[in-house]
Amino acid sequence: MTRGEAVKATYWIETPHELRRAAETMAGEQSTGTFVPVPGETPEVKARSGADIVRIEELEPAKTPSLPGAQPPKNADGLYRRGIVELEFPLHNFGPSIPNLMATVAGNLYELREFSGLRLLDVELPASFAQRYPGPKFGVEGTRRLAGVYGRPIIGTIVKPSIGLTVEELRLVVRELVEAGLDFIKDDELNANPTFAPLEDKVRVVMEEIERHADRTGKKAMYAFNITGDIDELRRNHDTVVRHGGTCVMVSIQSVGLAGLAYLNSFSEVPIHGHRNQWGMMTRCPALGMEFAAYQKLCRLAGADHLHVNALDSKFYESNGSVVRSVEGIRAPLFGGYACMPVLSSGQSAATAETTYRRLGTYDLMNIAGGGIMAHPGGPASGVRSMQLAWEAAIGGLDREAFAAEHAELRQALDAFSK
Amino acid sequence: MTRGEAVKATYWIETPHELRRAAETMAGEQSTGTFVPVPGETPEVKARSGADIVRIEELEPAKTPSLPGAQPPKNADGLYRRGIVELEFPLHNFGPSIPNLMATVAGNLYELREFSGLRLLDVELPASFAQRYPGPKFGVEGTRRLAGVYGRPIIGTIVKPSIGLTVEELRLVVRELVEAGLDFIKDDELNANPTFAPLEDKVRVVMEEIERHADRTGKKAMYAFNITGDIDELRRNHDTVVRHGGTCVMVSIQSVGLAGLAYLNSFSEVPIHGHRNQWGMMTRCPALGMEFAAYQKLCRLAGADHLHVNALDSKFYESNGSVVRSVEGIRAPLFGGYACMPVLSSGQSAATAETTYRRLGTYDLMNIAGGGIMAHPGGPASGVRSMQLAWEAAIGGLDREAFAAEHAELRQALDAFSK
Repeated sequence: MTRGEAVKATYWIETPHELRRAAETMAGEQSTGTFVPVPGETPEVKARSGADIVRIEELEPAKTPSLPGAQPPKNADGLYRRGIVELEFPLHNFGPSIPNLMATVAGNLYELREFSGLRLLDVELPASFAQRYPGPKFGVEGTRRLAGVYGRPIIGTIVKPSIGLTVEELRLVVRELVEAGLDFIKDDELNANPTFAPLEDKVRVVMEEIERHADRTGKKAMYAFNITGDIDELRRNHDTVVRHGGTCVMVSIQSVGLAGLAYLNSFSEVPIHGHRNQWGMMTRCPALGMEFAAYQKLCRLAGADHLHVNALDSKFYESNGSVVRSVEGIRAPLFGGYACMPVLSSGQSAATAETTYRRLGTYDLMNIAGGGIMAHPGGPASGVRSMQLAWEAAIGGLDREAFAAEHAELRQALDAFSK
Repeated sequence: MTRGEAVKATYWIETPHELRRAAETMAGEQSTGTFVPVPGETPEVKARSGADIVRIEELEPAKTPSLPGAQPPKNADGLYRRGIVELEFPLHNFGPSIPNLMATVAGNLYELREFSGLRLLDVELPASFAQRYPGPKFGVEGTRRLAGVYGRPIIGTIVKPSIGLTVEELRLVVRELVEAGLDFIKDDELNANPTFAPLEDKVRVVMEEIERHADRTGKKAMYAFNITGDIDELRRNHDTVVRHGGTCVMVSIQSVGLAGLAYLNSFSEVPIHGHRNQWGMMTRCPALGMEFAAYQKLCRLAGADHLHVNALDSKFYESNGSVVRSVEGIRAPLFGGYACMPVLSSGQSAATAETTYRRLGTYDLMNIAGGGIMAHPGGPASGVRSMQLAWEAAIGGLDREAFAAEHAELRQALDAFSK
């Protein structure tokens, strides 16, 4: 029996044990071994299913443990060794299955008392995953086609207040937003199917406003309806959106699970806007959880056409460097494709475009602004125009100040929103 | 419009801001507010959908932040204030929906730079959730009925090696285990549907052995087949197990998502064995993520008949006190019911029964032992017998040493496994 394809997983670890001993524990625990020697763990079984240690790289050790509960060995020297460990798992242990992959590359590892820190940095998946999971059906090009936006980012906003509007109040907000010329509007992650504004009614009212504006101007805004719900609701909610002419559905990925996302992608007819709320729980402690580098691959594999990454100079805890790495990660081809649009949201305005473009080197993204559009001194339409102008200047390498001198909307935005 | 039912969520927080200011940020962010004042956040909208601060309890502050990325206010005094915050969210914002509940009570909270620590301690859910999610169909009583075990814990084991056995190798292992008199056997979380031992073949072979033994002895062991997979596989895999006479299915809850678990529960005909691998990622950092107290309610609501909790004196990082709290949490009625069987696994043997029973005060649990059964000096059958005897002594309040003097299997186990 050949082992065939393999999955590589890279970890940062911290342990009171020798690094090699700790790496062996990881490889054993997540394949043929367990806490104690097992009679059935024959050489044949190990050859068939054992995980291999590909690489161990020692880093500077720490004097105190990052996480509680690690148990040092009897001869411990008080140091918590840190290192990078790369493991290789035979694919035939779990097959090209995201749910079963997760039980292997993450699984019980985080609870082992051999570790005072363990973080999954990256995964490398073999081609069988691409056969099983077709990935985004729309990605960057399909989204641009549906939104009719080329040569610049897709400029959007989130309906605010996040939650609490009745559908008729929402109608007026959406009317104002489409008349302002927005390319893209989305529900907040808090707003899916509230009792006082059921999804079906919301879709009907929003699409009436969008279609009416499109009939008049030719511009049909893309609205990401938050269809998050139980598995049996996903298809019904999706079909409701499509039936009313909607061109995008949104889900909270952690709420429906990667399995729920892949399920939605098995029948979706419009781009899937992937919101990563709850992700912070899995990543903000540097000694635990996962890096976005690994997570975004799984999200794209499962079918996210768009994926949130916070933004540069945002209101979140994340550093700009981390956001840049996230965008670069999403833009790197996966199996030669799986193109997905990064969504930059929070603290955005005309004032952030230049830095964003300089750091990212791309405009294949969604740029979502709230206050930067709605609180523009000239009103929402001037807010939208100011962002278009700011991106035009950034992409064209124009002198922003000189360009702003010629365009009042940009000038006002820079004055209002520059920090 | 009345606000009606509400969800209460309790958090531990750490923040460089005043506690009240931080609590207001949480309540605002997760309901009608956002980073900046929004024109549409009218008194009516706030009355309809705003979250309320129910309670703020100040704890001892810290001098250093637990998590990176918090941004202190300009007038910061260098302290990181800690406290308990209780919020109340109107149910009609999201309805009785686990996926949308999670976007509200967890959501983006973990990423806010107002916090250097944030942990969801507990949730209190209104009755509408019970109407939407029927919960476990079998629980403690149904599992006992199917396994034919009363008056003591259900004693079980995990097939080892975790992964790597062909189905014919597995046949011999299962034969030995059922002949040893085990009540319960389970797949490892690593072992779902490997290419070299497909689930369908595995189920057929395992059930042949179980039924053959049942025909001869009248005792039919319960086998928890790991059916973890993509959404479209859950029903197929479940049906395969039921078609072959299997009496239990297992899923990695985080792999299929709480939504996937609820979906499985919508059609399952046998108890669902809930494995919590990957949970460590969400809980091991004390300043982030969730407490099991909250998580187990969601798992039971979504339909877990059995739920893993590690074990006392286990090989994991978790303290015994935490395990005891987990078991007590699971055993506390939810909406007056939702009975679920705690699964104690890792480091278990006849030597751990007494302490376990003394600390937990119940035998309505599954006690899973590997080495404690397979490595018994008298062989697996003596291992099983030793655990039955150990629980008989514990439950009956017998003198364990005196009882062991009369029962060789218990004596040998205590000698072999006591620490």
